[in-house]
Amino acid sequence: MNRQELIAQIRLKKSFLCVGLDTEWAKIPAHLMDAEDPVFEFNKAIIDATRDLCVAYKPNLAFYEARGPQGWVSLQKTVDYIGNEHFTIADAKRGDIGNTSRLYAQTFFETYSFDSVTVAPYMGSDSVQPFFDFPNKWVILLALTSNAGSTDFQFGLQDQSTPLFEKVMRQAMTWGTPENLMFVVGATHPEKFADIRKIAPDHFLLVPGVGAQGGDLEALCHYGLNEDIGLLVNASRGIIYAGSGLDFATKAREAAAELQAQMAILLS
Amino acid sequence: MNRQELIAQIRLKKSFLCVGLDTEWAKIPAHLMDAEDPVFEFNKAIIDATRDLCVAYKPNLAFYEARGPQGWVSLQKTVDYIGNEHFTIADAKRGDIGNTSRLYAQTFFETYSFDSVTVAPYMGSDSVQPFFDFPNKWVILLALTSNAGSTDFQFGLQDQSTPLFEKVMRQAMTWGTPENLMFVVGATHPEKFADIRKIAPDHFLLVPGVGAQGGDLEALCHYGLNEDIGLLVNASRGIIYAGSGLDFATKAREAAAELQAQMAILLS
Repeated sequence: MNRQELIAQIRLKKSFLCVGLDTEWAKIPAHLMDAEDPVFEFNKAIIDATRDLCVAYKPNLAFYEARGPQGWVSLQKTVDYIGNEHFTIADAKRGDIGNTSRLYAQTFFETYSFDSVTVAPYMGSDSVQPFFDFPNKWVILLALTSNAGSTDFQFGLQDQSTPLFEKVMRQAMTWGTPENLMFVVGATHPEKFADIRKIAPDHFLLVPGVGAQGGDLEALCHYGLNEDIGLLVNASRGIIYAGSGLDFATKAREAAAELQAQMAILLS
Repeated sequence: MNRQELIAQIRLKKSFLCVGLDTEWAKIPAHLMDAEDPVFEFNKAIIDATRDLCVAYKPNLAFYEARGPQGWVSLQKTVDYIGNEHFTIADAKRGDIGNTSRLYAQTFFETYSFDSVTVAPYMGSDSVQPFFDFPNKWVILLALTSNAGSTDFQFGLQDQSTPLFEKVMRQAMTWGTPENLMFVVGATHPEKFADIRKIAPDHFLLVPGVGAQGGDLEALCHYGLNEDIGLLVNASRGIIYAGSGLDFATKAREAAAELQAQMAILLS
């Protein structure tokens, strides 16, 4: 999915919601555990319940890898089931030397046909650039993450004045464009969105940390929205585990609808 | 495998060689392609040919993921075949928010029973610490990597004087100990090994970049060896693709033996 198609989907649905499919085995409702593939059955129900309310789905790879080879089968079925009308994000946080990053790119863009993959910047240019060689595919680069440990290195002033996350963004903007590069910026740093929009006025930002991690949607939209919207706000646990019983999909829909309603107001 | 056992293996074999099992589908010799699992057959032959010459094996996950679910089956068979007398490294370069890193740790330490996993530091403390909760398992943290892009961020002076890789090392040494934490330091930066030994005199270093990437074994050993040896030097392509025909395993053994002979001299 390209940038124009993504923006069109957001305007059509009045939503820039991404649903995080962090499907944990221990949290799958009991009545699904007899299915042949409980992970896929759970995802299928969540997707059916939220499809009209969100523009993107983001499976976090850790949850699939932990199930062994079967987890990757569940992942493939999930991506196929999502189809082409939603933007898909492999939240994998990969990054390695050039020839190895190329294989990661092939894995997520070709073997599993995701639109995008999250990439960790620590190893620098040749660990990121191979991902840009795939037409119509996206890199979503970690810049300022949502977790407590984000303060350990990402704020460190490099070369006397520039925080590491800013240096990462500025450097990466010489490798990719607003058509193939987004940044991860956590909702837990709302005060930084004004600075970040000065650095990258046009790039989409993938924003985790709303909900379970405590980020505030209105605060981050105030500075984060740009004229092409420019935000994908992710919620995972707050939606997919809103309920735990027979009605888990209904509860997930209610949680997603609440966020979508807020987004519709913020977009109006 | 704990630190004492690893050191004992190194002294016994007069080798601190790690063989990188970066098994690329396109490079598997033609005569193995009829096997049920060519990746495993290739690895099995390499392991049989090098078992007495090395102390560690390091599959890079990218090469297995790229094969879809079957790749993980090949990986599992490979780890089982290696057995308990070699130190095993899942070269995965993972790292995510706390609850997600915990799942990655479970994946590599429990589902696949590796001794260690490589971890990327960008997301800070809570992205690394969950890996330390598994007894007798190791974190191998990216510090100064071997690739060209390592100069983009890792040398950046944080807080006016400390290069990022040093800050990463110093911080991580408050999370782990020489019993459960190693660092990745690329052989392509031999001039840095003296500094690194001042920062971390006791920790093992996993050193990629000898061979195909151009690092010099003698130069890095001059500063890198400590009284417990403290080095695992990895070679991947230089060993496993030393030959490409029927005799690929023999050629791999020759390449590994050459490195082991150099190591025996450097240890004497």
